[in-house]
Amino acid sequence: MRTVAWNTQNQCVELIDQRLLPGEFKVISLETAPQVAGAIREMVVRGAPAIGATAAFGLALAAQRSDARDVTQLRRELNVAAELLVQARPTAVNLRWAIQRVLSQVDSPAAMDVETLREAVLETAQQMADEDVQINQRMAQHGAALIQDGDTVIHHCNTGALATVDWGTALGVIRLAHEQGKRVQVLVDETRPRLQGARLTAWELEQYGIPYHIISDNAAGYFLRSGQVNKVFFGGDRMAANGDVANKIGTYMLALAAHDNQVPAYCVVPTSTIDLSLAHGGLIPIEEREADEVLNLQVNGVAVTPQGARARNPAFDVTPHRLLTAVITELGVIYPPLEVHLRQALNRATQE
Amino acid sequence: MRTVAWNTQNQCVELIDQRLLPGEFKVISLETAPQVAGAIREMVVRGAPAIGATAAFGLALAAQRSDARDVTQLRRELNVAAELLVQARPTAVNLRWAIQRVLSQVDSPAAMDVETLREAVLETAQQMADEDVQINQRMAQHGAALIQDGDTVIHHCNTGALATVDWGTALGVIRLAHEQGKRVQVLVDETRPRLQGARLTAWELEQYGIPYHIISDNAAGYFLRSGQVNKVFFGGDRMAANGDVANKIGTYMLALAAHDNQVPAYCVVPTSTIDLSLAHGGLIPIEEREADEVLNLQVNGVAVTPQGARARNPAFDVTPHRLLTAVITELGVIYPPLEVHLRQALNRATQE
Repeated sequence: MRTVAWNTQNQCVELIDQRLLPGEFKVISLETAPQVAGAIREMVVRGAPAIGATAAFGLALAAQRSDARDVTQLRRELNVAAELLVQARPTAVNLRWAIQRVLSQVDSPAAMDVETLREAVLETAQQMADEDVQINQRMAQHGAALIQDGDTVIHHCNTGALATVDWGTALGVIRLAHEQGKRVQVLVDETRPRLQGARLTAWELEQYGIPYHIISDNAAGYFLRSGQVNKVFFGGDRMAANGDVANKIGTYMLALAAHDNQVPAYCVVPTSTIDLSLAHGGLIPIEEREADEVLNLQVNGVAVTPQGARARNPAFDVTPHRLLTAVITELGVIYPPLEVHLRQALNRATQE
Repeated sequence: MRTVAWNTQNQCVELIDQRLLPGEFKVISLETAPQVAGAIREMVVRGAPAIGATAAFGLALAAQRSDARDVTQLRRELNVAAELLVQARPTAVNLRWAIQRVLSQVDSPAAMDVETLREAVLETAQQMADEDVQINQRMAQHGAALIQDGDTVIHHCNTGALATVDWGTALGVIRLAHEQGKRVQVLVDETRPRLQGARLTAWELEQYGIPYHIISDNAAGYFLRSGQVNKVFFGGDRMAANGDVANKIGTYMLALAAHDNQVPAYCVVPTSTIDLSLAHGGLIPIEEREADEVLNLQVNGVAVTPQGARARNPAFDVTPHRLLTAVITELGVIYPPLEVHLRQALNRATQE
């Protein structure tokens, strides 16, 4: 079962509802683009590659359900849906990238009638979903070569099958190393406030049979400083041209602690995460979410925070490129200077 | 109401049960030294200065309740109780320091009969509790001078009245600056896994009327990097002779992020926290607590972690002295080189 998939029979998008895991495994069906935008905003689905694919299917829904009589009308409706989807979450660039890629089909002169256009949108979305899995597997091949038998790694947030269409980015690297027979154990950052590590990564590692321990995010420094960690892996939501990368809140402090202890820190991202239009990470918009995500904790059924408590809740932070040992992409492992090598790799890929 | 106090009428120790805050304010009475050791271990009371004072009262209980007929027997019983208390929590040195200070009374030749000895133990414990409040107020005076009108500060764990007999260490500094009329607002690290920030510090700040927002520990780096923070304050559980300091898990990553952004980081500790017998922080024993403290989270009544999940739970980490801007003690603000200046300050105080 993929994290996001198109149901051909019912002409709808199916998502694993990640808000319910690990307690309950439930698949929900979405019928309209606004429902898809809502699901992205509410984090039914999350993870940069997964929300990119979901948004593409959202446009497919808009196309399938449209009663437009001509291509101009359908294009107009798709642009409205695209605007809604793109605003669902501002930080991850994959969302915008996926939508633009679908819209480029829509604007193609080949799409001359409504039915052809509808099919082109759905086909593109399905193709992108399939490609995401292939890209993850290529990243995993490049990344797994860096993991040695016996390694202990720290992993932040969830970057597994649930964060992508299937397989995963950073967690996909660890998963492949495990499948290759390397003994690897994972210290799983619980990843406050949404606890994607404690909920989703732990759940995935249970399935894969990879040994792990959950840790408080703030304990990573202890394990790094006491020499118990060989490598650090995380994903990314948007990487600027110089290699600065926005990722789940806490990545910056983790990368900093890795750097302070000369432990390699690897960012695992498909090249669709790289936004060459931004010179540096300071230009990446950072989403701040509801205070309630920080305040709604309970222990033994009792609320943790006092009445009247307020919270700040930035969902991402920016890790400066100087803290990255390398960026693992489907094109290979890209080493510093990232400002030079990221652009070179992308240009080379475009020319091929 | 003090966090820890001696009830003269009932000859017992009274503690605010910090496990129940902020939902419930309850004072519990302890009758025996083993009960006191249990309360320290279970974190009914926590915070290095508070557990020091509590342990001293634990010895007073042992003395009061003893039916020893001679001083030798009473001394023996006190040594047994001391051993039990000292083992309750290994990292904070204040516990050991407080017990040793009480035992030094016991060994004094002036304590020639059982009744005199009993009284000496109780008097010493009460004197230490009173001194703790005075020491906190002196630290607050020295520290508050460093806070400027309009400052935003990050605070880790709980170091307020609840972490001491009364007033507080790092939070006491912030509290005094507020009482002096300086506008100061606090970003409160929630402090996983026990959530002392979200539970206790937020509760105290509500009482004091100091504006605050709770943040995930891993979000401190975001606020530091985006220039929203002027200073960072935390306490300490044991400081080695070179200034390396063991404090609540997460302090190292916080201090590192402050340092990376040239934001001053202040450690606020009474000199009883400084352990000159240890050359550096690598020699400080670090307590690892039950995995359940990490795993027992609920959101909306639902368990967060999957069945079978395991966790690691170190309760403290060591922040290297190079990351500290200064150490605020009751003797004044001590600046680097800490290896030199800590010893000088302590020697000068001993000679006075």
